[in-house]
Amino acid sequence: MRRKSLSGAPCPIARTLDVIGDWWSLLIVRDCLKGMRRFSELQKNLDVSKNILTRRLRALIAQDILTLQPAADGSAYQEYRLTDKGRRLFPVLVALSQWGRENLAGIDPNPMTLVDREYRQPVRPIEIRAHDGRVLGPGETVMTRLG
Amino acid sequence: MRRKSLSGAPCPIARTLDVIGDWWSLLIVRDCLKGMRRFSELQKNLDVSKNILTRRLRALIAQDILTLQPAADGSAYQEYRLTDKGRRLFPVLVALSQWGRENLAGIDPNPMTLVDREYRQPVRPIEIRAHDGRVLGPGETVMTRLG
Repeated sequence: MRRKSLSGAPCPIARTLDVIGDWWSLLIVRDCLKGMRRFSELQKNLDVSKNILTRRLRALIAQDILTLQPAADGSAYQEYRLTDKGRRLFPVLVALSQWGRENLAGIDPNPMTLVDREYRQPVRPIEIRAHDGRVLGPGETVMTRLG
Repeated sequence: MRRKSLSGAPCPIARTLDVIGDWWSLLIVRDCLKGMRRFSELQKNLDVSKNILTRRLRALIAQDILTLQPAADGSAYQEYRLTDKGRRLFPVLVALSQWGRENLAGIDPNPMTLVDREYRQPVRPIEIRAHDGRVLGPGETVMTRLG
């Protein structure tokens, strides 16, 4: 597929997809949010070739979404860690997860669900709210420049 | 890039990316949420070849995200309309937009912002909340089967 750069697009959705609009990149971020840090863990969990994983990790580092640093346990390993910018992708992944669970669950009678760690209760569905708390549908919003 | 199907993956993020984890597909959904309905409008706004757009539209119809129906104005045109399943991608797009605005704004002094149509105020940032309303970070959640 031809890839046209959208890094200078005015729309922040387009700019974001230019950076993380890649199937593997978001799955790597997902696994890092789960606590995975090592190349071998990521490769095993994603079942991806070393080449592809290496390229994606490099791109994520170049975008300041991941950093590579010495292992916290003092061993010779290096670890991939999410930057703050990378951790801020959490709501994107939760929104993807919610949509998948509600729309693609298929016949799984007991689908994977995001819960809070302490009480094991499902998180609340994401809603888009106005400044005054009203829930907004897509037709009640518009993308604009405020200045 | 090799594309391995994740349609049967247990993780709903992986399943979702299998369906809409394509740069163009989400931009098409974005434009349809904005109210665009015709092939020519989409092609012009996305600046994409007819071939690529045709393939992506077919895939979105096959996934029940779009439907193709006679134009509402009674003309001979056909229109692409989001299904309910497609409209439910709204939070995914808002999450992508929010991340882009906060992390990739670059030097734009007046970036595009999602506002509510009525009051022209920015929407609230998306937060992930527990059943009791607590805001949750990624480390306070876990993906699990509840049964």
